[in-house]
Amino acid sequence: MPASPLDPARLTADLIRCPSVTPEEGGALLLLEGVLSDAGFACTRVDRGGVSNLYARWGDRGAARSFGFNGHTDVVPVGDEGAWSVPPFDAVERDGMLWGRGATDMKSGVAAFAAAAVDFVRDTPPDGAVILAITGDEEGDAVDGTRALLDWMEANDERMTACLVGEPTCPERMGEMIKIGRRGSLSAWITITGVQGHSAYPHRARNPLPAMARLMDRLSSHTLDEGTAHFDPSTLAVVTIDTGNPATNVIPAECRATVNIRFNDSHDGASLTAWLQDEIDRVAAGFGVGATMRVKVSGEAFLTPPGALSALVARAVEAETGIAPALSTTGGTSDARFVRNHCPVVEFGLVGQTMHQVDERVEIDQIHQLKAIYSQILRDYFT
Amino acid sequence: MPASPLDPARLTADLIRCPSVTPEEGGALLLLEGVLSDAGFACTRVDRGGVSNLYARWGDRGAARSFGFNGHTDVVPVGDEGAWSVPPFDAVERDGMLWGRGATDMKSGVAAFAAAAVDFVRDTPPDGAVILAITGDEEGDAVDGTRALLDWMEANDERMTACLVGEPTCPERMGEMIKIGRRGSLSAWITITGVQGHSAYPHRARNPLPAMARLMDRLSSHTLDEGTAHFDPSTLAVVTIDTGNPATNVIPAECRATVNIRFNDSHDGASLTAWLQDEIDRVAAGFGVGATMRVKVSGEAFLTPPGALSALVARAVEAETGIAPALSTTGGTSDARFVRNHCPVVEFGLVGQTMHQVDERVEIDQIHQLKAIYSQILRDYFT
Repeated sequence: MPASPLDPARLTADLIRCPSVTPEEGGALLLLEGVLSDAGFACTRVDRGGVSNLYARWGDRGAARSFGFNGHTDVVPVGDEGAWSVPPFDAVERDGMLWGRGATDMKSGVAAFAAAAVDFVRDTPPDGAVILAITGDEEGDAVDGTRALLDWMEANDERMTACLVGEPTCPERMGEMIKIGRRGSLSAWITITGVQGHSAYPHRARNPLPAMARLMDRLSSHTLDEGTAHFDPSTLAVVTIDTGNPATNVIPAECRATVNIRFNDSHDGASLTAWLQDEIDRVAAGFGVGATMRVKVSGEAFLTPPGALSALVARAVEAETGIAPALSTTGGTSDARFVRNHCPVVEFGLVGQTMHQVDERVEIDQIHQLKAIYSQILRDYFT
Repeated sequence: MPASPLDPARLTADLIRCPSVTPEEGGALLLLEGVLSDAGFACTRVDRGGVSNLYARWGDRGAARSFGFNGHTDVVPVGDEGAWSVPPFDAVERDGMLWGRGATDMKSGVAAFAAAAVDFVRDTPPDGAVILAITGDEEGDAVDGTRALLDWMEANDERMTACLVGEPTCPERMGEMIKIGRRGSLSAWITITGVQGHSAYPHRARNPLPAMARLMDRLSSHTLDEGTAHFDPSTLAVVTIDTGNPATNVIPAECRATVNIRFNDSHDGASLTAWLQDEIDRVAAGFGVGATMRVKVSGEAFLTPPGALSALVARAVEAETGIAPALSTTGGTSDARFVRNHCPVVEFGLVGQTMHQVDERVEIDQIHQLKAIYSQILRDYFT
């Protein structure tokens, strides 16, 4: 008697019932470790910095073809629990949907690729390895999550030859978008310092605010680029300007601002930092004020150019949904920014409209559809 | 036996001992009322809105020549009392100086003109009236202070034909400056409103910050004027820009800024308000954001053009100090902004370097010198 297929919707529900708000493991990785061990996967807990991660491999280490899935079981906080229609960790089934925190982002994705992988290695054992690299720290600092898994893999000669990140990627309809790269993200905290004084005697003070206004005007007016082959134009957003001076008769000594840049592959963190510093120096010199900047690059832009991997995923998506997915690089950032240093990586998952919201929920049919697509990808990859 | 002259330093000390922090009367006006009544002044307490004021007239109401002095007995708070070298209401005499809150701003000025007036009407009774309009609300909102006195005077057919405000006017050396006008002051609170969104998708949001930066750059770059015959150029200071957005991945919905304009007699509150509104409308339309403004004009610019009154005061100052005083319109604002609607007004007083500070103090010799100057002004005015 053939074993019955693993139900990805039931696995999603079981995972939702694990309250795994970052950095709590909440029982989610333990549950997956049990399922995967039973299916013949070699499981290793890779814990670092108070965060739990799970590495599971079926097949030989160092196989010529090793297909990996990456995803996370941690979830963002529930927010105002009283605003939810259902208890957020009860995995209530209603109107053909599963409700709960993590339903779309991304316990359904993890359940779908785990179920696909278990059935695949059991029913059609491949000539190669199937790897699941699952983290409990994607929604938090992400310092000890997928990066810890990749560090551990490098130290232990573990290798994926291709990887699919199962984050939600479809804006509205299942199947419409694959991500083949992501823009980079840089934040800069800028402080301009002058000399405090009385508003009635501005010549005795040195007001930092006109310099800040000029600088922010210059930065936000600048066209960083016109877009590249696979990327939209880079954007710069001034996200805050703050002084905190309540007195109309006082010229303040200091003003602070923060800008956030989402950049494509025509820039990198270093080139943008140099550009910002040049603009700051120019304005500061012109106004005779001091200026300092602190920069954080939370991810460089990256691209897995359209090729074998994206074509394989696109074929599977179209076979299952009838939709030819767009190859996109839009949106925020994801753990693919770490994986891309290891092997070719693309991202495909379901519709993410309710992610991070109250009443997060997922269509149960979509979970099954997603498992079917992941199964098709595995079959095609090893054929 | 001729009556002995009234000692202005002793009167200053007695006034310092009255703890008249706005809006407390502290006994200061009561003390003056006693001194002036004894000298034949008709005294009226003009109290309004919880504030006490004192109107004192020697001579006939409606006299053809009625010289007035204006000043205040209220003082600013002592601040950190532990930082004072002396108790701030003890009027300690040390190193030839009187120490205490109000020593320069402006109990010495009130004492000097009260002593000059008392001696003058007793020793050389003039053909006219001498008026003292003394308020207990100059350091506060100033709504029920000199304005209440002027309202009461108008309602009671009381009139000054010239007025001297006894505020400290000399930057460093006794006698170097008379004020013949003051710049106006306008503050504007501006709010720009857009649409909140995610930093990764700026096209779906409408960021108010680039519009605010452009507006503040335009305002602070603008030359309001080049100065006028008796005034320095008007100035505009951006005093604060605030957003309060802690998240680098969020574009905020709103930003606020405040500007303060110190303006000369080529502008008024209405013309500047119209200019600001025009600039705001232009920028808001260009960026497609909303904008609102609230304006407060705390004083219009005014000038008593150089003439008989300023010449008379300047002659008295030079006769006593040997210094030809400059006729200036610099500095902040004063109650002369109210008096100027009533009659020609100039301001002259002592050196104000320690006003509002810890260890406020005044040279005792300067109090006597100030009384001598005020006495000379009275003699000249009625000659």
